[in-house]
Amino acid sequence: MGWGDLGSFGEPSKETPHLDQMAAEGILFLDFYTANPLCSPSRAALLTGRLPVRNGFYTTNAHARNAYTPQDIVGGIPDSELLLPELLKKAGYVNKIIGKWHLGHRPQFHPLKHGFDEWFGSPNCHFGPFDNRALPNIPVYRDWEMIGRYYEDFKIDLKTGEANLTQIYLQEALDFISKQQASQQPFFLYWAIDATHAPVYASKQFLGTSQRGLYGDAVREIDDSVGKILEHLQKLGISEDTFVFFTSDNGAALISAPKQGGSNGPFLCGKQTTFEGGMREPAIAWWPGHIPAGGVSHQLGSVMDLFSTSLSLAGLRPPGDRQIDGIDLLPAILQGKIIDRPIFYYRGNEMMAVRVGLYKAHYWTWSNSWEEYSKGIDFCPGQNVSGVTTHTQEEHTNLPLLFHLGRDPGEKYPLSFASDEYQWAMERISAVVQQHKATMVPGEPQLNVCDKAVMNWSPPGCEKLGKCLKPPKSDPKKCFWPH
Amino acid sequence: MGWGDLGSFGEPSKETPHLDQMAAEGILFLDFYTANPLCSPSRAALLTGRLPVRNGFYTTNAHARNAYTPQDIVGGIPDSELLLPELLKKAGYVNKIIGKWHLGHRPQFHPLKHGFDEWFGSPNCHFGPFDNRALPNIPVYRDWEMIGRYYEDFKIDLKTGEANLTQIYLQEALDFISKQQASQQPFFLYWAIDATHAPVYASKQFLGTSQRGLYGDAVREIDDSVGKILEHLQKLGISEDTFVFFTSDNGAALISAPKQGGSNGPFLCGKQTTFEGGMREPAIAWWPGHIPAGGVSHQLGSVMDLFSTSLSLAGLRPPGDRQIDGIDLLPAILQGKIIDRPIFYYRGNEMMAVRVGLYKAHYWTWSNSWEEYSKGIDFCPGQNVSGVTTHTQEEHTNLPLLFHLGRDPGEKYPLSFASDEYQWAMERISAVVQQHKATMVPGEPQLNVCDKAVMNWSPPGCEKLGKCLKPPKSDPKKCFWPH
Repeated sequence: MGWGDLGSFGEPSKETPHLDQMAAEGILFLDFYTANPLCSPSRAALLTGRLPVRNGFYTTNAHARNAYTPQDIVGGIPDSELLLPELLKKAGYVNKIIGKWHLGHRPQFHPLKHGFDEWFGSPNCHFGPFDNRALPNIPVYRDWEMIGRYYEDFKIDLKTGEANLTQIYLQEALDFISKQQASQQPFFLYWAIDATHAPVYASKQFLGTSQRGLYGDAVREIDDSVGKILEHLQKLGISEDTFVFFTSDNGAALISAPKQGGSNGPFLCGKQTTFEGGMREPAIAWWPGHIPAGGVSHQLGSVMDLFSTSLSLAGLRPPGDRQIDGIDLLPAILQGKIIDRPIFYYRGNEMMAVRVGLYKAHYWTWSNSWEEYSKGIDFCPGQNVSGVTTHTQEEHTNLPLLFHLGRDPGEKYPLSFASDEYQWAMERISAVVQQHKATMVPGEPQLNVCDKAVMNWSPPGCEKLGKCLKPPKSDPKKCFWPH
Repeated sequence: MGWGDLGSFGEPSKETPHLDQMAAEGILFLDFYTANPLCSPSRAALLTGRLPVRNGFYTTNAHARNAYTPQDIVGGIPDSELLLPELLKKAGYVNKIIGKWHLGHRPQFHPLKHGFDEWFGSPNCHFGPFDNRALPNIPVYRDWEMIGRYYEDFKIDLKTGEANLTQIYLQEALDFISKQQASQQPFFLYWAIDATHAPVYASKQFLGTSQRGLYGDAVREIDDSVGKILEHLQKLGISEDTFVFFTSDNGAALISAPKQGGSNGPFLCGKQTTFEGGMREPAIAWWPGHIPAGGVSHQLGSVMDLFSTSLSLAGLRPPGDRQIDGIDLLPAILQGKIIDRPIFYYRGNEMMAVRVGLYKAHYWTWSNSWEEYSKGIDFCPGQNVSGVTTHTQEEHTNLPLLFHLGRDPGEKYPLSFASDEYQWAMERISAVVQQHKATMVPGEPQLNVCDKAVMNWSPPGCEKLGKCLKPPKSDPKKCFWPH
């Protein structure tokens, strides 16, 4: 989902009354970022509070490549990483993940081995369908074992776009919340649904209900579901004891537009890129009785802050033995303070850009290769900013491209290198980057090796369902990451 | 000002708390259009309820050219046109225009000859400055006579961007409203300030207060002023008797970006074009006690509807002796009804495009000429949609380019000509266009002839101020309209 997909963020069809209401009752973050322009690394960053380049969710197979956890990935979340739910356990929290895990699907990466107490959902994204011969369909787990597979037991009709997955995930959330409220135990719910990822789906009751086609229908269903979750908290009388945060893991995938792609509002390009459209996200915090209603914050925020903020809410401190990139947002949320901190835009192993205040400096620019572009793969459809949305990897380390995101949110007008403004802004930014690079210790890259043998052929529990498939012989290779 | 310049419409710096509050208390129109992608024709359409091609605010000097009323224009609003204030007079309204008139500056076009009772403002836009030799500075009138000139008596500091014009226009509005409330006379106030037109200015108290630079400062000042006007109505106890509508006369002029240009949100291009960015406008109706708060309307609306809606509010009927293009929006505003009506996108003498429902068909495409474009004049900076943002005038009459503005608000993905959707949507649209063209009676074009002798050399009242200038010899020529 993109920054521009919510009514509060300017989507012209304004189809998100519940999220808009959530914003009206809570606080809207306008300058909130994901840690990576695509799924797995973002989610790893959210749960570890650390940049993907630190927690291992990147590749060194080639320079500045987007990488994630497809079915044949060998890597996953290292045991050495401390995940938010592992830490929250110490404060008595019961932790549940509903939906897409995406931090590795091999046994050692199972979410219940990394601090979650419960899981209902899939280890990988739903896209496919696979044929269960060359490629197995993605399994859906309940806790330790699979209970079925997408397309077989959890239907997604690619023709009509109908699937009731979001409804199933919603019900699971409501039930978990009820259970926790009844048992009076504090809880952390990571509601990581995989709508609006292509192929986009929505439940029957939402199909055809938006101006935007299937994508808008899916947004409407998410909006409705968030509304139901908030309403549920209120009905149970625990809304003032429950902190809720809504955000996305990357910008709208414009490559799926117009039928299955969302909106990044006035920002440049989308998913897969380190332009604003790829990484600036819708973000709303809600906590009635604590957060002043109707707030708007320009605090630079990151999904990694949800790690630190959650720990703070639970009365815990972040681990002191490692670099944590997230910050505690509570002063921004509760007291309207602005904490000075940079945002780093990484693509794989490369820091492509950095934002300090309203300035963003690009050290590298790349949308995708000419080869891909010539085949119609376009991360910036209809947009072309000369020297910025480049189709070759362009290094600007010696003279970064600098934009003022206030006057120029669309990254169209680089500041003149000769201007005073460029000079003093870059002085400040250079110091930030220098410090960042000097202290950077990259983690062991987890997304380098692929092997068909590790796919979800025979997940735990498959034997009870007669759904075990025979894996091929192991043949590990360097994964191919084209962009 | 553009669609995307208000917080409610998704501007990322959310600098319009008062307009957002106005929307929260009133109704937001998301599909509201001006009648032309630039100033004079839009304003003529607003006041007459008629398309510029009917009321004469267009040119036939060349095909599909944008034309307006610079100082040397010979034409203006014809006496045969009936303006909103002329009609409102019959219902006892006192009518005032504050700010930019722009319907002709020669004596016969004076606003007080066309229904207004009072005027404080200028006949033309403030841009210049002129030197009072080759070109006179624009006069500022109070009612029948000039009281000074821009840059001389009404300072605009082009270096700092400081000018207190909006404050002067605000005070004038507050005073007029107080006077009318005291005299218990119904009133029509046309608050036609000329901020945010380039060169952009703001008062000292607003300079440097926005994230967006001078343009954002100007928006903040307008926002603050609207807030003060609404507050004034409430304090005087007449808010429930006063209908207020906020909108703009064209999309943000991206040619002035990034320093002096605004935002058209997710829409294509800007001012001067018939793409959405050029003609879709922010629009908010406010009438406490009558309009249900927090409404959102997808009614296709037009500035011309303000003519018909205002007449309806005053208990009057639109003139029956001519074609009126505006419709009464009250059913949409008060009862949430949707009235089926098309939107026509004209550029000069050509109907470039039409919107019916969520479909928009382009019969002609043009941004501007290669010649202008090569000189850096760009109405679509950073945007390039092949075959759509064309630099030659392209006719598509036989096979219009069709867009679905729900799925594709940015006009990036023309529907396939071979699709069923194209076939049935175009069938409906063709019928609408055929009827429109069959009954179209163009007015006498007013924007064909230019003559330096008609400039504001010696406006009425200049002699009292010693500010009369000697006009050159009359030398009427065809005006040159490059785009």
